[in-house]
Amino acid sequence: MIDLNSDLGEGFGVWRLGDDDALLDVVTSANVACGFHAGDASTMRAVCAAAAERGVAIGAQVSYRDLAGFGRRFIDVDPVQLADEVLYQIGALQAFARAAGTDVVYVKPHGALYNAAVHHERQAGAVVDGVRAFGALPVLGLPGSALLRAAERAGLPAVPEAFADRGYTPEGTLVPRGAEGALLTDTAAVVERATRLARDGEIVAVDGTVLRSRARSLCLHGDTPGAVGHARAVRAALDGAGVPIVAFAGRLAE
Amino acid sequence: MIDLNSDLGEGFGVWRLGDDDALLDVVTSANVACGFHAGDASTMRAVCAAAAERGVAIGAQVSYRDLAGFGRRFIDVDPVQLADEVLYQIGALQAFARAAGTDVVYVKPHGALYNAAVHHERQAGAVVDGVRAFGALPVLGLPGSALLRAAERAGLPAVPEAFADRGYTPEGTLVPRGAEGALLTDTAAVVERATRLARDGEIVAVDGTVLRSRARSLCLHGDTPGAVGHARAVRAALDGAGVPIVAFAGRLAE
Amino acid sequence: MIDLNSDLGEGFGVWRLGDDDALLDVVTSANVACGFHAGDASTMRAVCAAAAERGVAIGAQVSYRDLAGFGRRFIDVDPVQLADEVLYQIGALQAFARAAGTDVVYVKPHGALYNAAVHHERQAGAVVDGVRAFGALPVLGLPGSALLRAAERAGLPAVPEAFADRGYTPEGTLVPRGAEGALLTDTAAVVERATRLARDGEIVAVDGTVLRSRARSLCLHGDTPGAVGHARAVRAALDGAGVPIVAFAGRLAE
Amino acid sequence: MIDLNSDLGEGFGVWRLGDDDALLDVVTSANVACGFHAGDASTMRAVCAAAAERGVAIGAQVSYRDLAGFGRRFIDVDPVQLADEVLYQIGALQAFARAAGTDVVYVKPHGALYNAAVHHERQAGAVVDGVRAFGALPVLGLPGSALLRAAERAGLPAVPEAFADRGYTPEGTLVPRGAEGALLTDTAAVVERATRLARDGEIVAVDGTVLRSRARSLCLHGDTPGAVGHARAVRAALDGAGVPIVAFAGRLAE
Repeated sequence: MIDLNSDLGEGFGVWRLGDDDALLDVVTSANVACGFHAGDASTMRAVCAAAAERGVAIGAQVSYRDLAGFGRRFIDVDPVQLADEVLYQIGALQAFARAAGTDVVYVKPHGALYNAAVHHERQAGAVVDGVRAFGALPVLGLPGSALLRAAERAGLPAVPEAFADRGYTPEGTLVPRGAEGALLTDTAAVVERATRLARDGEIVAVDGTVLRSRARSLCLHGDTPGAVGHARAVRAALDGAGVPIVAFAGRLAE
Repeated sequence: MIDLNSDLGEGFGVWRLGDDDALLDVVTSANVACGFHAGDASTMRAVCAAAAERGVAIGAQVSYRDLAGFGRRFIDVDPVQLADEVLYQIGALQAFARAAGTDVVYVKPHGALYNAAVHHERQAGAVVDGVRAFGALPVLGLPGSALLRAAERAGLPAVPEAFADRGYTPEGTLVPRGAEGALLTDTAAVVERATRLARDGEIVAVDGTVLRSRARSLCLHGDTPGAVGHARAVRAALDGAGVPIVAFAGRLAE
Repeated sequence: MIDLNSDLGEGFGVWRLGDDDALLDVVTSANVACGFHAGDASTMRAVCAAAAERGVAIGAQVSYRDLAGFGRRFIDVDPVQLADEVLYQIGALQAFARAAGTDVVYVKPHGALYNAAVHHERQAGAVVDGVRAFGALPVLGLPGSALLRAAERAGLPAVPEAFADRGYTPEGTLVPRGAEGALLTDTAAVVERATRLARDGEIVAVDGTVLRSRARSLCLHGDTPGAVGHARAVRAALDGAGVPIVAFAGRLAE
Repeated sequence: MIDLNSDLGEGFGVWRLGDDDALLDVVTSANVACGFHAGDASTMRAVCAAAAERGVAIGAQVSYRDLAGFGRRFIDVDPVQLADEVLYQIGALQAFARAAGTDVVYVKPHGALYNAAVHHERQAGAVVDGVRAFGALPVLGLPGSALLRAAERAGLPAVPEAFADRGYTPEGTLVPRGAEGALLTDTAAVVERATRLARDGEIVAVDGTVLRSRARSLCLHGDTPGAVGHARAVRAALDGAGVPIVAFAGRLAE
């Protein structure tokens, strides 16, 4: 049993990014941008409505306040303020989820905040504080991250994810972007990653090392060339292999 | 019985506006800025917490998206988008109200949106659409406005308000800013306005005409010189006259 | 002799809009977004450098401050503030033009400000005030607009433009978007419009009426499907017909 | 001979910060906010006009793009983009300086960018790159900072400054905010700091150590309680002591 998640609603005003409709037909969990790195009110409404229609779980993709940088730059924001900003974003998205007849059922940080929350204890704690102020939602993040540890300490479900199209080191960390093997560009390799993870709980690192993974969700990217094709191929392969594809947080909305 | 409302939380980042703490000791309804014309996440959290502590009802002071103009310029925004932006703002504020143990219990448009909603049927309707998408909250506005008519048609409680420190024409409209008599600057006049409205349901226009008013809430400004003094004097006079000062929407939060 | 102008640099952060490189190979005047409706510092630098390299004249495409609405909503901004914002945008762009070895040599309002400046005397005057505070630059706009009249009164060169892909009424105004005949979608029709205007100073209206036009520049859109194809076809046809394609403001930069 | 500099124009929209007019009567160099951490077009116009009128030199107080954080949070922005953003800000301010009959004659980073540029070689270099793309302006900063070293390497005048109201360690660095002795709150101490620096080139550290200082400018804060009083007292004392108070960059504008 596996969940498929993807970043959605990452346009702003006239600008679009990724193919939301195509991905909503593939994933079980939609990480919806909440207006801080991308996403405006109308985008959020549309994505929530489309997700609810398809039974896709809605998660708040919370970010630093940084439209100009798409939330991809670390910002040394005060943890109290960060917690407040996380709560603001979840609350705004929840209004659209409710209007679509469902709820925000998990939270996943975006971009530089996601990366910071791997090691930066205070910001990781701030994200968790923001989530807790909203309610006991699961937090989706990198296995072993400060974020998931903080979530566990706070009594929130901590859900580890893996990446369908990223290379892993033998130590289980991601190969840094720019380095050789950082990205799986071959559809067959992406599909193999997904099915092996879902079926066997294993990830094969760049050097062939077989890693055990507790990931309960697989992140599919939607904004790179070929991404939608990869996503569809993964879905088809998992369906073909008889792997149940189920939102990890889906039942919380009922 | 009368409600006293005031605009609060209208700072942004390092910038402050008005004396939130002083006004929270006077009013029964706090129109909290939601980040579109003013207000950031930390401001919203602080104002909601302080309001909840004092039993002051929390309302969403929704605005055009216009920090640079403080929401004071008409924007010809598409009604569908405006409805979405209203919902976004209410949702964000609701998260802070919930975290403070209460709820957003009414909505009042700010600045140019307030003025537009007096005559602009489509924008008035859009505000109401945004409110309804959130829930059946009362809408606070000008008596006779398109906004209150649209609220009534939609089955939302439509709550008319009067202004403690604004001059009225014999026709019952506000004397335009800049014109003679637009502002009551004398404390005694402000207090007289408030007590006469609360006790007798009457407003005296600039030419002495006595107007009947159905206003159930009195708006006190907080960002003008002497405003806090006026507000305190009004509160003291009403208390002294034995007029019950009660949030119009207070019980919805229970 | 004709000038070809197009809106460029209309991305923001990660978001792109239109094909700047393709259009820079076609046009002689680049209306560069200055950060208020689109365009960030790096986009502006890149477009200015690419324009300077090709000898394309750089114009400031000034806008209301409205990234969320892409400058497409009328904003009732105070004229003094609008003039200041126009000056701000021209100044910012000028820094990048200078860094690329050239100058901003004209100004064209964008979107809702362009439309407002057709009839709104105070905002049209404000745009001109902002331009004059920078220097005696030509202003590009709709023939007969308040903007061009204000420019003339102020002693600025007022340059009328026509649209390659918009339908005209027999009265010489644009067929409103949404109405039949608003857009020329056929490449042959767009090319015919361009060549007839350049060669004969004539525009054929939707009902066949032949209009005289003083337009010295032809606006080519870049953000619609087929736009780049149209633009290239226009360029090729004009080149083939021996029409000199020359920036109206080009020599000011020397 | 000493220069007095202060941060000015740090309001935004309706919000004000500090007493610009009072400080403009005291200082010889105005660090004008350029819209990225504070400052809007109208503020910039007004401050430039008032500075030009008084013969106060205008400097660009460049910042990270961060209105919500007032530029006080480190942002890990890409150096190429940072250089572009610095250039954008200088260009925008230059338009207002020109309109006031003068020029931007120096650059000083604000807040977290100022602090980052002390040690962060790439961001310090980016600031200098942005300045150079505009022209050979002097850069004002902390003695010994990466910023001033980068300016020197680039052939730009590197101007060290001292702080009138900050405590110094025996090593010559600032006592961190929050630590004991971080702020001089006593007017006499602030005046003594200023006169001793101007007359003898000396700063007395918190433990009494006498430090040699090459500072050619003294920074006066305007946004703390008593700041304007301190600034006026410093000015009066220097005038009384016969110390010439002269803008370090003033002659570049002529």
